[in-house]
Amino acid sequence: MLLFTAKAIENLLESILFDGAGLVPAIAQRHDTGEVLMLAWMDRDAVRETLNTGRVTYWSRSRQKLWRKGDTSGHTQRLISLRIDCDGDTLLLNVEQIGAACHTNRPNCFFREVSEEGLAVISEPMAD
Amino acid sequence: MLLFTAKAIENLLESILFDGAGLVPAIAQRHDTGEVLMLAWMDRDAVRETLNTGRVTYWSRSRQKLWRKGDTSGHTQRLISLRIDCDGDTLLLNVEQIGAACHTNRPNCFFREVSEEGLAVISEPMAD
Repeated sequence: MLLFTAKAIENLLESILFDGAGLVPAIAQRHDTGEVLMLAWMDRDAVRETLNTGRVTYWSRSRQKLWRKGDTSGHTQRLISLRIDCDGDTLLLNVEQIGAACHTNRPNCFFREVSEEGLAVISEPMAD
Repeated sequence: MLLFTAKAIENLLESILFDGAGLVPAIAQRHDTGEVLMLAWMDRDAVRETLNTGRVTYWSRSRQKLWRKGDTSGHTQRLISLRIDCDGDTLLLNVEQIGAACHTNRPNCFFREVSEEGLAVISEPMAD
């Protein structure tokens, strides 16, 4: 389990340029394979919760509340490391992903790719 | 060079959920190593330009104009593949990156990581 000091967490929060809605995009990447799993959004509390617990927590824009990834599906994300970009407006989370990252039960959310003829589905839902 | 039909490009554009400003976040990832390079934004014209030319083009929110990556720095991105996520509000670009992706001349923009004590710089600018 990662444990960060309150100072480290506040240091990060001061460096994040939250948007007008108080949110910052967070990219989740598998720490072992480099697979990009998803992009979701965090508010200040989601950042704090993620760093305090090591359980990745987002802000759900559709439900307008904190969303601790996996609480419903069991498909949790454990934080391995958290990085911030040069201008402070994007986070990159290296995570350990349990099960499918996507709500369609696919390993990641980016399963449609532009092909010559249009969008092609390039991965299937995982077996239960 | 990738070449997509107008139909394929329109099919993608219809599937993208642009935000209130007409933008969608695009994650650029190195196609060979899986390294996440940066996140930037695209409007409809940037998506079209990227697919039509194979040269990754974003919308610069600070300059409020199209930004063909590398025009100033020489650090271009060539598109290898473009994916869209399950709910259509994020793009993932697999790219061939020439030189540094970050304007700080680092390989990628995510060079600050939360450590126990605060943000630590984890990569240095590339040699010229």
